[in-house]
Amino acid sequence: MTKQPSPLFFLDRTKPVSLQTQLSSNVKRLVHTGVLRPGKAVPASRELARDLQISRNTVIQAYDRLIGEGYLEASARRGLYVSKLLEGKNLGKAPSADMPGPVPRYFEEAISERVNSPVPFRPCQPDVRLFPLRLWNRARTQAFRRHGTSILQYQSQQPLGLPALRQSLAGYLQGSRGVRCDWRQIAITTGSQQALFLLAHLLLRPGDPVAMEDPGYLGARLAWQHMRAEIHPIQVDSAGMKLDGEKDFSPKLIYTTPSRQFPIGSCLSLPRRLALVGFAARKKAWIVEDDYDSEFRYSRAPLPSLQSLDSSERVIYVGSASKALFPSLRIGYAVLPTALVDKFAKLRAAVDEHGPLIDQGTLAEFIESGAFYRHMRRSRREYALRLEVFLDSVTKFDLPLSFPYTDGGMNLAGFLRSAAGDAEFSRRLEKEGLEVPALSRYSLRATSPGLLFGFTAFAPNTIRASMQLASHVLRCR
Amino acid sequence: MTKQPSPLFFLDRTKPVSLQTQLSSNVKRLVHTGVLRPGKAVPASRELARDLQISRNTVIQAYDRLIGEGYLEASARRGLYVSKLLEGKNLGKAPSADMPGPVPRYFEEAISERVNSPVPFRPCQPDVRLFPLRLWNRARTQAFRRHGTSILQYQSQQPLGLPALRQSLAGYLQGSRGVRCDWRQIAITTGSQQALFLLAHLLLRPGDPVAMEDPGYLGARLAWQHMRAEIHPIQVDSAGMKLDGEKDFSPKLIYTTPSRQFPIGSCLSLPRRLALVGFAARKKAWIVEDDYDSEFRYSRAPLPSLQSLDSSERVIYVGSASKALFPSLRIGYAVLPTALVDKFAKLRAAVDEHGPLIDQGTLAEFIESGAFYRHMRRSRREYALRLEVFLDSVTKFDLPLSFPYTDGGMNLAGFLRSAAGDAEFSRRLEKEGLEVPALSRYSLRATSPGLLFGFTAFAPNTIRASMQLASHVLRCR
Repeated sequence: MTKQPSPLFFLDRTKPVSLQTQLSSNVKRLVHTGVLRPGKAVPASRELARDLQISRNTVIQAYDRLIGEGYLEASARRGLYVSKLLEGKNLGKAPSADMPGPVPRYFEEAISERVNSPVPFRPCQPDVRLFPLRLWNRARTQAFRRHGTSILQYQSQQPLGLPALRQSLAGYLQGSRGVRCDWRQIAITTGSQQALFLLAHLLLRPGDPVAMEDPGYLGARLAWQHMRAEIHPIQVDSAGMKLDGEKDFSPKLIYTTPSRQFPIGSCLSLPRRLALVGFAARKKAWIVEDDYDSEFRYSRAPLPSLQSLDSSERVIYVGSASKALFPSLRIGYAVLPTALVDKFAKLRAAVDEHGPLIDQGTLAEFIESGAFYRHMRRSRREYALRLEVFLDSVTKFDLPLSFPYTDGGMNLAGFLRSAAGDAEFSRRLEKEGLEVPALSRYSLRATSPGLLFGFTAFAPNTIRASMQLASHVLRCR
Repeated sequence: MTKQPSPLFFLDRTKPVSLQTQLSSNVKRLVHTGVLRPGKAVPASRELARDLQISRNTVIQAYDRLIGEGYLEASARRGLYVSKLLEGKNLGKAPSADMPGPVPRYFEEAISERVNSPVPFRPCQPDVRLFPLRLWNRARTQAFRRHGTSILQYQSQQPLGLPALRQSLAGYLQGSRGVRCDWRQIAITTGSQQALFLLAHLLLRPGDPVAMEDPGYLGARLAWQHMRAEIHPIQVDSAGMKLDGEKDFSPKLIYTTPSRQFPIGSCLSLPRRLALVGFAARKKAWIVEDDYDSEFRYSRAPLPSLQSLDSSERVIYVGSASKALFPSLRIGYAVLPTALVDKFAKLRAAVDEHGPLIDQGTLAEFIESGAFYRHMRRSRREYALRLEVFLDSVTKFDLPLSFPYTDGGMNLAGFLRSAAGDAEFSRRLEKEGLEVPALSRYSLRATSPGLLFGFTAFAPNTIRASMQLASHVLRCR
């Protein structure tokens, strides 16, 4: 092992170039290739010298030279770091020939480099500016106090999540949605998407028939497609999913958004709910009830969950904290029939062991302290106002759309009065900086053309201005 | 819809019992069944009255009665909550007959209800008491400052994780492990387990042959087994995985822990590394390099990663922040060959969209501020000391085991001198409260019997005392 390379730095003692020069070239290369970015600390000289088995003086001299050349800067507090003056500079200059080349730009812009905030009217976005981060941080401190360092440890014996959170959620879901369960039936997941994915794995085999609302939620379709299930699109109308006339059909799984059909917004009627639960029991089909934004009701109380009507344990209730709190928290949950709990836990252990616990502990405290309910009330009030502003703007700017389902949720489906293709309208709006997906995007079969507007993440003035713009675009021929 | 039940409370206006009585019975039932736990707030009277469409006075009277009966307590700050005096009481009393029964206890103790801390000598556990939570919280504040509210939003265009973290990790992995990559090749995952699971999905089909070290890491085996791959156990010795004599064998994937073979602890030699990379290139096999605890080297510098030796992009480097920081953070990562990046991103989007972002932003700041490196140095110093204490205790208490690989990591494999079954020894130690898994637990084929000791999570005194106890148990016949 005479030539064991040190990972980051490629020093070659057999070369006629001094180690000091090689080292400073190395640093430059790392700066040029973006590995060492402006503001980033470089390794301490003592440590680097030890790692490279060279004298510390060599490192110090190389660093001094780099300071002189403007690559590095020093501060008493932070030590040596890459000069911030290099920020945003196109460093472009190729590294010297005997160094590995610049990092190639493999990827198209398909995967963006930036994090961003939603533009009007991206659907399903809460206004995270309303989120009481201070209270959340207080709940976090409280979680540390309650659980001590055990909340930092692996809890591999708990693939379904922190018991404290599962208990809090059980109370919340029973109270607000009539979900009937023991807390041990609750599985915490990475967003509701992971719940759907795990359920697909657990319940489906390739080719299995899955009944799904059409138009319907794309994340769910992704999950079923991942298992190569055979998707049967089911029509929706003003009373939700219309599963009648499907007597000869035996789906393995039925996916529905009964509280507020996504994306249309209609509510599954009580007679259809009872029929659906009965159908599932007869066919031994599973029902996945995705209650994705039931927190947001502004006038009448919602129907209780489908799960609460089901006595044969065929309904799996899925929800998420993404909308009630903030999306990047990535906490979702499934309320599992008892027969599925152990299997779900085993699968989750193989998939990613368990989710992050500090956030789970924090959410439990946030619920128990009442801050969760207060935030819900505040969001509801604010969103109700925005809904009003939105609907006022529809009238004021005379949008050529009709909005039949306006009693809750975060989105409004606007149906086109003409039979024109909705995708074209969506594209035109996009050109003007508005994100208003076409309903056809969510459909497998041809459905009524329309556009989906999310209204919750945007301030009233933004809603008004964007609606005026949207009206202009939609009314242009 | 004459009898639309309110979710949590079952009020029946047709009954001869007053609504106030029904409501207070309801609350009692919820307390008895553990839904409303001691200390938990009850809904505000105004809200509950509105939800149930009953008069607020009815709610207030029911609550007053419950205060009188000791179920509820009031405080100015927190409002009304379930009396803490009920904590730990066996409430046992059955609820009244016309209410839904008590929540059944479906589950065995297989899934424990408690979070816990590791007992000696559970392997692969960092000492989370060393973790600088204050600096972590500071990095978290800095992440909020840098990203603003966008770090609370969905970032569905970024299924591989926050670019800031991927960039910081690229620098760290290049610097410390010689990993050669552009940051866009880095995927952040929910622990390394999710990386393994996603790779299994991406690269394997049922029946595909997978070569895996034996004994080897159980989490990896779970992932391959999930895809119903055919696992070929490969022997390990003092120079790591011994893949020679396998010329007719064409695995689809090879799983290895070259830095420090898990659980044995030997290091894959340079000749074998070169042979392995060549073999994979010829066979067009993927290599998954799991660098699970490479941060912890106490004497000599480690060999650079296998990935750094590979020019044909067959090696996928997998690592985790679980050991370097704390396990419940659940941040792992994979460095993907460019050909796999887009597929991995698509799969991740279907699996759970993306991971939580505040922690990702925090980790990026923690690395960039240098706190990460300082914590690594501190942990390394402390663990080196514990290793010394451990090995001293082996001698002092004359353990009937030999420890051949002691130059790093978090665990030590102790081989039994006799040919006795190691599982029996492990069980005996467990009875004394020590968690020392048998090496056979990690094996598919018969291998040298031994026990696996993790030493990093335990204070020197605990190590000494536990070793004395272990010696006593192991020397008893």
